Amino acid sequence: MILIVRKPFAKMRGNLKWNKAKNDIVCGFRGEVDSVHKSIKSWLLGEKLASNQIHEEKFTVFWGLPVLASDAISSVAYAAEEILWAFVPVIGVASYFWLPKVAGAIVILLVLLTISYRQIVEAYPNGGGAYIVAKDNLKTIFGLIVGASLSVDYTLTVAVSISAATAAITSAIPFLFTHKVAIAIMLILLIAFGNLRGVKDSSKIFSIPTYAFMMAIIILIFMGLVKTFQGSFAPHPDLMSPDLSFGTQAISLFLILKAFSSGCAAVTGVEAICDAVPNFKEPAPQNAKNAYILLAIAVFITFAGTSYLAQVFQAVPNEKQTVIAQLAIQVFGKGFMFYLIQATTAIILAMAANTAFVGFPTLISVISRDGYAPRQLASRGHRLNYSNGILLLALAAALLVIIFQGDTHALIPLYAVGVFTSFTLAQAGMCRRWWRLKPKGWHYKAFINGLGCLVTFVAVLVIGVTKFISGAWIVFIIIPILIYGMYRIKNHYKTVAGQLDIPNAVLQQLKLKARQVPYVIIPIDSLNKMVIKSLNYAQSISPNVEVFHVETYEGEADKLRKKWRMLDTDIPLVIKQSPYREVIKSLVEHIESEEHSSQPGDIITILLPQFVVSKPWQMALHNNTSLFITNALLKERDIVVSILPFQVEDDSEPDGPVQNGETKQ
Amino acid sequence: MILIVRKPFAKMRGNLKWNKAKNDIVCGFRGEVDSVHKSIKSWLLGEKLASNQIHEEKFTVFWGLPVLASDAISSVAYAAEEILWAFVPVIGVASYFWLPKVAGAIVILLVLLTISYRQIVEAYPNGGGAYIVAKDNLKTIFGLIVGASLSVDYTLTVAVSISAATAAITSAIPFLFTHKVAIAIMLILLIAFGNLRGVKDSSKIFSIPTYAFMMAIIILIFMGLVKTFQGSFAPHPDLMSPDLSFGTQAISLFLILKAFSSGCAAVTGVEAICDAVPNFKEPAPQNAKNAYILLAIAVFITFAGTSYLAQVFQAVPNEKQTVIAQLAIQVFGKGFMFYLIQATTAIILAMAANTAFVGFPTLISVISRDGYAPRQLASRGHRLNYSNGILLLALAAALLVIIFQGDTHALIPLYAVGVFTSFTLAQAGMCRRWWRLKPKGWHYKAFINGLGCLVTFVAVLVIGVTKFISGAWIVFIIIPILIYGMYRIKNHYKTVAGQLDIPNAVLQQLKLKARQVPYVIIPIDSLNKMVIKSLNYAQSISPNVEVFHVETYEGEADKLRKKWRMLDTDIPLVIKQSPYREVIKSLVEHIESEEHSSQPGDIITILLPQFVVSKPWQMALHNNTSLFITNALLKERDIVVSILPFQVEDDSEPDGPVQNGETKQ
Repeated sequence: MILIVRKPFAKMRGNLKWNKAKNDIVCGFRGEVDSVHKSIKSWLLGEKLASNQIHEEKFTVFWGLPVLASDAISSVAYAAEEILWAFVPVIGVASYFWLPKVAGAIVILLVLLTISYRQIVEAYPNGGGAYIVAKDNLKTIFGLIVGASLSVDYTLTVAVSISAATAAITSAIPFLFTHKVAIAIMLILLIAFGNLRGVKDSSKIFSIPTYAFMMAIIILIFMGLVKTFQGSFAPHPDLMSPDLSFGTQAISLFLILKAFSSGCAAVTGVEAICDAVPNFKEPAPQNAKNAYILLAIAVFITFAGTSYLAQVFQAVPNEKQTVIAQLAIQVFGKGFMFYLIQATTAIILAMAANTAFVGFPTLISVISRDGYAPRQLASRGHRLNYSNGILLLALAAALLVIIFQGDTHALIPLYAVGVFTSFTLAQAGMCRRWWRLKPKGWHYKAFINGLGCLVTFVAVLVIGVTKFISGAWIVFIIIPILIYGMYRIKNHYKTVAGQLDIPNAVLQQLKLKARQVPYVIIPIDSLNKMVIKSLNYAQSISPNVEVFHVETYEGEADKLRKKWRMLDTDIPLVIKQSPYREVIKSLVEHIESEEHSSQPGDIITILLPQFVVSKPWQMALHNNTSLFITNALLKERDIVVSILPFQVEDDSEPDGPVQNGETKQ
Repeated sequence: MILIVRKPFAKMRGNLKWNKAKNDIVCGFRGEVDSVHKSIKSWLLGEKLASNQIHEEKFTVFWGLPVLASDAISSVAYAAEEILWAFVPVIGVASYFWLPKVAGAIVILLVLLTISYRQIVEAYPNGGGAYIVAKDNLKTIFGLIVGASLSVDYTLTVAVSISAATAAITSAIPFLFTHKVAIAIMLILLIAFGNLRGVKDSSKIFSIPTYAFMMAIIILIFMGLVKTFQGSFAPHPDLMSPDLSFGTQAISLFLILKAFSSGCAAVTGVEAICDAVPNFKEPAPQNAKNAYILLAIAVFITFAGTSYLAQVFQAVPNEKQTVIAQLAIQVFGKGFMFYLIQATTAIILAMAANTAFVGFPTLISVISRDGYAPRQLASRGHRLNYSNGILLLALAAALLVIIFQGDTHALIPLYAVGVFTSFTLAQAGMCRRWWRLKPKGWHYKAFINGLGCLVTFVAVLVIGVTKFISGAWIVFIIIPILIYGMYRIKNHYKTVAGQLDIPNAVLQQLKLKARQVPYVIIPIDSLNKMVIKSLNYAQSISPNVEVFHVETYEGEADKLRKKWRMLDTDIPLVIKQSPYREVIKSLVEHIESEEHSSQPGDIITILLPQFVVSKPWQMALHNNTSLFITNALLKERDIVVSILPFQVEDDSEPDGPVQNGETKQ
């Protein structure tokens, strides 16, 4: 894990120097606080990137694969085990007869999905994956179902894998157990932070452990096969005790389907590459397609290999030791290779979260550009990534971790439904597309997608039925709520656009109105330099100016009246009494009444003199009425609120008791 | 406690009706949300009061005394006990020889303080008590010492007495123990809420238990005296065991002083009436002086009476049973009267907090009017009380409770230092005053104050020395920090006033400047109806208008340029490129540069078109750039930020998938 910490720091130091030089120039007009703030931001996130630097932030297949595949590859760590968990308690030794068959079916599904998703990448090179496919070829609602499902799944991926990583840490260092929620949230922040620095940086940070895990698993499989063919292995003593004859029930179709759907965990990570196509260097689609081939090979080798070994060594799933750990012990004994496999497994499980941090922001930016999510999610941040999406995901996952107190088991059942729904809809969409466009060889392509659609649909049904009670029902409530929200958002944007839009024909006819004179009202508290500055400005924009004061205690305004008389001016001073001390309400009532001398249709300008103090704590010493007035008035029509700032110089240093000059303010 | 809940509810229903009628009128222009908000506020706090209704909110001596004296009277519940705690462990049976002597000295101190504070009320009828006396007659710094000390003490009073009340509740209902902090905070909020409803309401709520406690104690003393003279009492079996012969050390002056300073708890509540003189009905000073007489009598009877009984019955202080409880058992047995005394004691201890909620806001309002505290603390709220002071006290006390986890013992040593410092300084101030003014009979008055000053000064020293290590040192750190803060605040107000103030002579000479033409810059994102509205307004205030756009991606502004050309206008469209997507920074740089065509000295007006949406969640769907721009620009000089609101109509109801009209916004 040292890599995660060291690498950015080395880079940061470089950036800090670079920015120091730059900030000296900036300081001139933005003040020191701003430049310190910027230095910190640059130091943490790296120097700000220009919009045209975006190609530099993209990754090659070699660095991109680990980032986008760690979810898929990490699933392998438990897919074979999941199949055995479904079988062993029911049919005992017969499990090892059925394991390779189910695993084979999943490998076929993997091949289907890979071909299918390569076809999606080709058709939709701008990313967005299943969402775009479903929205474009089926109806919008199916796109939104996919969008909502995948958003939920990405959030779950982060929460679950981080909770798993935290569990690994607290197993090693037990006194940290009481702080597990805090540790999980820190890990989420760390990964979010890595991703805020940018996809290129994070790909390098996260690649090494992924490749290390891959290598370790391949060595495990190779050595396992060697031992198998030498016949030189003996069952590990730990494995002698479990009684495999307990399972006596007959095999049933439902059981096979259940085992199949459990094993489907191995393929859940396939979507990510497709969502994040634009993150690859050009030619992005070709690179993404190559990444799919490599991902399929990696998953195939590790999943097929570990499933085969699990069958040969007759690994028995149990609470204490994972199947991978059992295999490692049998092949290597409890030596270096065993601990390497355990360590890299823990790391790659945590890193599955990173895949979500790359996939989700890209997906949500596509949804956002369609108007179904807040538009801020489509804008690029400091380092050109979708920083708001990254922050949203971190926040949602942290909330899940807090609500479930870092307990992963409660979250796992919520998982696969969404992914497989997306698979099904995406392939249905692709089928429809081939049917509609009928390109060369479309029969073959449509067959692949159709078969994939059918298989994943069966998986959805099986998963939905088997896991409904243990938690999947939550997903069936959350997804419709998200979809409703998406419609509301879209609807709002549509309404606003409708009210703002000017058709070009109208625009060409449009004559800007002739000059009108605004009526200016200046609410004041007392007569001071700030008010004089406001009066000067008001007279420069209109001859119709009025000064307005609210008297909250009887006789309180006498002093103001007297001072006003000293100022030789035609501008009227209007004083309203408000025995209930409602300054803002009195002003609003005055504006809405016909008492002031503006003409109907005039835009009334409320000119608010506003203190600007240099330190935040000084803000708390003033009533800041003008901020409240601004908020209250923005609801009014045909009004403009003008704020005239009056910068107060820094206080002189406190110099003991103030004896004189205790002027009333 | 039922009274606290029932009474306000009965009144609230009345207010709710009253306000419903009023809100129907209000609804017309403020919207429903506002009127619901107001209904709730009126229902909770009572109808809003007009400034001239203030006399209706003041209390008579009968209702005011319990509110302002519950702190003092509740101290009696433990003052005699405190003296015995100082003596018994050291000198054993000899304690009962010294107890009446020390108690007598405290009674003399009580008489001294009462006379002295009546003199203060007479001299300073507007409240503020020791703070005003010290500030006015000594130096400002002494006033601030008093102000800071009393503020700390009032906060401690609330935290300690509420913690004590919570302890009483959790002793009775043990399963609430784990929630003691939450209960304490709820009690603080309840009392704060009672006080926000107004002093008159709260005085009625809180008077009954105070008078009940007084009556119970008087009956206890009377029956105790009867039993004493009949000689018909036998020591309670519980009291036979403690061995009173253990104390063998000789009496020392230090021990007597320590016992005296412990017993001084009985007089700590004397300040409150003096701080809150204006809360009495007219003639306020006379009513306050009468309240002092009644307070002195009440404290005298209860303190002298319980001390005498404690001596006669030879009560032994112990952890399990308070001295008052021991006396009650001996006089009445464990019957109705015993439980009545226990219950009213618990209630009155909690109600000491209420005294602080009346004293502190009045004191801090006086300090605030002098400019040494944020001025919001001097403004009257919804019900004409100093609502900000009430909220500040509730917040500070709640923080103390949270930090000390509701443990009262840690807070008690912090107490008396502040009160006695105030006593000393107030009486020193009065001495100085008599010396200066030399009114008729001033020798006598100065003697009273001088003696009081001396005695309380000794008490400060003894308390400071004996309690320094057990926590009083915290006060010695906090008070200087508060005083420094007060100076900083005063200094800030002075600086601001200096920069704003216009002497009358200057005012009479002042000519408002001739009309100047402002230069208007309108930052826009795209060309829409909102922008057209802004252009019309801009042209009405100045002929010098410019539209400004920041291009963040190459080619992104082409569409805007094209649309702008369609609009046949002379207003220039300025486009700046910002590859780093810094819209606000680009605007600020443009304003500060010489690129725009305004003349030096012109006030530049930034006209910001601003969406106004009807529901808060819709705010989150827009970038709200104009709010950020406003904040960034307020630091600039010679600028006015004008916000032109554009109200967006409510969304039409979502009607399923949006198929057409997916306009880009």
